[in-house]
Amino acid sequence: MSEKMKKPQIKKPAKKQSGKAAQKNAPKKTIYKPSVKANTKKHTAKEPKKKKEQPKPSIRIVFLGGLNEIGKNMTAFECEGDIMILDCGMAFPDGDMLGVDMVIPDFTYIEQNRDKIRGVVITHGHEDHIGGIPYLLSKVNVPIYGTPLTIGLIENKLREHSLSAPAELIKKNAGDRVKLGCFDVELIHVNHSIPDAVGVAIHSPAGTIVHTGDFKIDYTPMAGGMINLSRFAQLGDEGVLALMADSTNAGRPGYTATEQKVADSFDSLFMKARHSRIIIATFASNISRIQQILNCAQKYGRKVAFSGRSMINYMNVARELGYVSVPDNLIIDIDRLKDYPPEKIVLATTGSQGEPMSALSRMAYSDHRKVEVGTGDFIIISANPIPGNERTVGNVVDELLKRGCEVVYESMYEVHVSGHACQEELKLIHSLVKPRYFIPVHGEQKHLRKHAGIAMAVGMDRKDIYVGDIGKVVELSQTAMKEIDTVTAGKVFVDGLGVGDVGSIVLRDRKHLGQDGLIIIVASLDVYDGHVISGPDIVSRGFVYVRENGALMDDIRDTALEILEECSRRNIHEWGVIKNRIKDDIAKLIVKQTGRSPMILPILMEV
Amino acid sequence: MSEKMKKPQIKKPAKKQSGKAAQKNAPKKTIYKPSVKANTKKHTAKEPKKKKEQPKPSIRIVFLGGLNEIGKNMTAFECEGDIMILDCGMAFPDGDMLGVDMVIPDFTYIEQNRDKIRGVVITHGHEDHIGGIPYLLSKVNVPIYGTPLTIGLIENKLREHSLSAPAELIKKNAGDRVKLGCFDVELIHVNHSIPDAVGVAIHSPAGTIVHTGDFKIDYTPMAGGMINLSRFAQLGDEGVLALMADSTNAGRPGYTATEQKVADSFDSLFMKARHSRIIIATFASNISRIQQILNCAQKYGRKVAFSGRSMINYMNVARELGYVSVPDNLIIDIDRLKDYPPEKIVLATTGSQGEPMSALSRMAYSDHRKVEVGTGDFIIISANPIPGNERTVGNVVDELLKRGCEVVYESMYEVHVSGHACQEELKLIHSLVKPRYFIPVHGEQKHLRKHAGIAMAVGMDRKDIYVGDIGKVVELSQTAMKEIDTVTAGKVFVDGLGVGDVGSIVLRDRKHLGQDGLIIIVASLDVYDGHVISGPDIVSRGFVYVRENGALMDDIRDTALEILEECSRRNIHEWGVIKNRIKDDIAKLIVKQTGRSPMILPILMEV
Repeated sequence: MSEKMKKPQIKKPAKKQSGKAAQKNAPKKTIYKPSVKANTKKHTAKEPKKKKEQPKPSIRIVFLGGLNEIGKNMTAFECEGDIMILDCGMAFPDGDMLGVDMVIPDFTYIEQNRDKIRGVVITHGHEDHIGGIPYLLSKVNVPIYGTPLTIGLIENKLREHSLSAPAELIKKNAGDRVKLGCFDVELIHVNHSIPDAVGVAIHSPAGTIVHTGDFKIDYTPMAGGMINLSRFAQLGDEGVLALMADSTNAGRPGYTATEQKVADSFDSLFMKARHSRIIIATFASNISRIQQILNCAQKYGRKVAFSGRSMINYMNVARELGYVSVPDNLIIDIDRLKDYPPEKIVLATTGSQGEPMSALSRMAYSDHRKVEVGTGDFIIISANPIPGNERTVGNVVDELLKRGCEVVYESMYEVHVSGHACQEELKLIHSLVKPRYFIPVHGEQKHLRKHAGIAMAVGMDRKDIYVGDIGKVVELSQTAMKEIDTVTAGKVFVDGLGVGDVGSIVLRDRKHLGQDGLIIIVASLDVYDGHVISGPDIVSRGFVYVRENGALMDDIRDTALEILEECSRRNIHEWGVIKNRIKDDIAKLIVKQTGRSPMILPILMEV
Repeated sequence: MSEKMKKPQIKKPAKKQSGKAAQKNAPKKTIYKPSVKANTKKHTAKEPKKKKEQPKPSIRIVFLGGLNEIGKNMTAFECEGDIMILDCGMAFPDGDMLGVDMVIPDFTYIEQNRDKIRGVVITHGHEDHIGGIPYLLSKVNVPIYGTPLTIGLIENKLREHSLSAPAELIKKNAGDRVKLGCFDVELIHVNHSIPDAVGVAIHSPAGTIVHTGDFKIDYTPMAGGMINLSRFAQLGDEGVLALMADSTNAGRPGYTATEQKVADSFDSLFMKARHSRIIIATFASNISRIQQILNCAQKYGRKVAFSGRSMINYMNVARELGYVSVPDNLIIDIDRLKDYPPEKIVLATTGSQGEPMSALSRMAYSDHRKVEVGTGDFIIISANPIPGNERTVGNVVDELLKRGCEVVYESMYEVHVSGHACQEELKLIHSLVKPRYFIPVHGEQKHLRKHAGIAMAVGMDRKDIYVGDIGKVVELSQTAMKEIDTVTAGKVFVDGLGVGDVGSIVLRDRKHLGQDGLIIIVASLDVYDGHVISGPDIVSRGFVYVRENGALMDDIRDTALEILEECSRRNIHEWGVIKNRIKDDIAKLIVKQTGRSPMILPILMEV
């Protein structure tokens, strides 16, 4: 560690000093292998210039997603000319992004720096961490590292996108290290709502940065063992330059309950519903939850069928890789539901967020081709609504209730636990890692702020905490953390096959059309004197019932005809001028008669 | 009470029997005055026919709004040829009702029965209980009864709608009775989040129906005194045919906290924020809350300004009628904010639901003409997000935080309490009123079901509970409650000045336009042989950036031209056929190239 550390303006708790001092006294023993190597190289190169030990280089962190937003997580780390990327996720569109299927990060910075990129490390297989990968790979060909399940899910995704370019996907296990230029990235097992999730310790010439990924602390998880807290503690003792940690639940006090709680609830609900068919909706990716469903089904002598494309996909990958254990003959095809009495069936389904096209929604609105629900169905929604989905989930619950189903939802029973650490867990990680600097990540402004508050509560100085934003570049060294630059970053919209071809103007038009509809005024004009040869015809969509508003349509037609004839008489032939007069006058007419402002599109043709 | 009550199939708890028996033994003393009168009349009329005491007539309840939905509360009661209406509210549009400003009940039943309607009783002045009145009055001229504040707010609303027909608005106080044909409607003081709220006891020849309106039990409200629990208890002892009660919070265990809690929180937050400007967003109608803001401002030597049209409107009505007490010189105009240092100011504002055009949203997005927020502002959101608004409220909070404001939101401090009774309060009302039948009202299916569960928990039989829906008609007598009919009921959309002229087809088009945008193909054809004289021209909105998609636009034009020329060659002149071919082929072309499905509008003109 550099002498600069002792600069008077920086306050450090005594025990952190001692931890770092210990490391400083035994540099050869440190696990910062690449760091040491890189430093050595550098020293050799620069030795003629300076006799004293070189100060460590700095590291730059470029935030491309996941700050001031939920999802679309992506961060780049740059040190000594090497760049490594952590995660490459997607986000779901907000309500005002009409017609947008998916939001991915802006890859401009990546493309501009393609030669420096050594690889991408993925923390786990959720969409908000892997969903952008196919789009990234279509821009730059970089190797992608992750744990076996994560890589399995990425393979599956690339197959769906039928990406032709062969991607280099490399499986690593928790505890393994990945060398990416000057970076040595160590994968550390964490608990989360999908198996095989890792945090990372990014060992670099500038020091070690610990990034938790999405995590929680579960002392009794279903599988995979508890988070490797001791490794976080060792890293803390060795000295950590910066901690970047999951802020999703920074607003929630206490601890996130263990997944075992859900096991207990499922058990008692299976007892309670012993005369009913049981239908459980949960996140397709929550493989531990599905394992619990399988366990309960086995115990109570029920067969399990799956409904929903993503549920089936995840199960295929998880079974193939051995992440679920399925007794023989437990799983049946959904087409065979009729071969069993209802009380011998569990149906695991997608749709826990009330998504309109999902299996559960289709059941609720009698639109599912294979499953009809009603009295005698016991439905468990084993998930909490993601903010923004409360209404759709509530509507699905209501429809199911109206059909006579019994429905367990929200916090009626403990049928769901979060995958993210709450305040007390965050305090524990902070206390173990004891970072020099802290950067809250994965969350909206309110979550990042809350997380900053937690860091201060456990003793950090406000000036050692950086609450960032996407596009910002922050530089860290042993002596300072500062925002030094801004790069292109933002939301790229995927709509169908189009990536980035829908932007603010298209969205503004969609919003206008969606809110108020459309009036088209079309006329053919004489090419010589501009008088009306045909039309004006009025076409309207999404505005009013035209048949019941004949008088209004006539008024619109008359107004347009009058303007066109007047322009012809007065020799006004600039179509821009004519169209604007039609727009303005008809807008006034319509707002006066209806109080509305549809999009008005005059189309003139020369004949 | 009729002898029929003792029919063996009906189980009644013993104490209810005794209460009703007591009443039966002293019919002259009962407070059912109109009931007795009506019965007497009837007896006289029918005496020659029958010697024995006539059985009581039945009463019909027609649900026109407020079941399986939040808001738009409206119920009609029909007995012996008289109809009275309770409440006439509006609802906010769901996310899929694009461009709709407001939803009101379908008044078909009211119009069909206009001659029987004796009057409308309004329980309190919230929009979901009064918002439909201007539209109702434009259909039928009926007298409207309510407490002074309620009538004041209705007057204000009618003024805004500049209704020309003079409405008959009659002020009554809690404890007063309103005679409407055979009905004698007694107003009973309840607690709610607006002053002057009442429940009603509808005394009818068929018996008494108690309807709580929106209510909660607050032993220490800010003003107006606690709910008249003893009157509910007396009614229970006298015998109640049916209870209809507010289900909004039927899913919440425990009790709703008293409004005084908020006073304590405000006090400590005013202390905490003593060096900042304080901005408090709350419901404009929550006059008690605004009184608390005024009290705190007075105590801490701050001036109060109001922002937001509805906030100013409510304050004007409340001040005029004496529902807020305002010390001299406490309130200043928003234009005078600059005359005072920030720490001497409280700004009370609308926008607690994150509504895009509200004052608080404008402040958050730097779009407010008179208030700029930033570091040094302490903002309190004194409301919970209504389901569906979580996202917009969260976004506003984030924007305010980004500007450096301190923001108190959600359950960080007890700065909000609900206006609706939770489970224990509902149990209390059920236990006091001891109804023969129970009908949960005001809520979605999940709330109604939960409320039915509460009624069963306190001893009711499932078959004496009716979970209804709008459009249903239920008939109640001393011996039976049954659904007997269905009438026209539903959602009428208000969009601008139009009422009911936007329906499912218009909404479907709006959704399509909003999601995928629009391609217009326009061409002029020769009137004789159908060949193309001008065009086809392609106009697109909300689809893609046209400039960056020239090739696609060319493909669309070429395809359309080919179809038109081919149709001309092959003498196909039916425009329906030609248009459908254009639609189909271009839809295929676009979906193949872009994966999208814009609305395709071919427009052909004959020249």
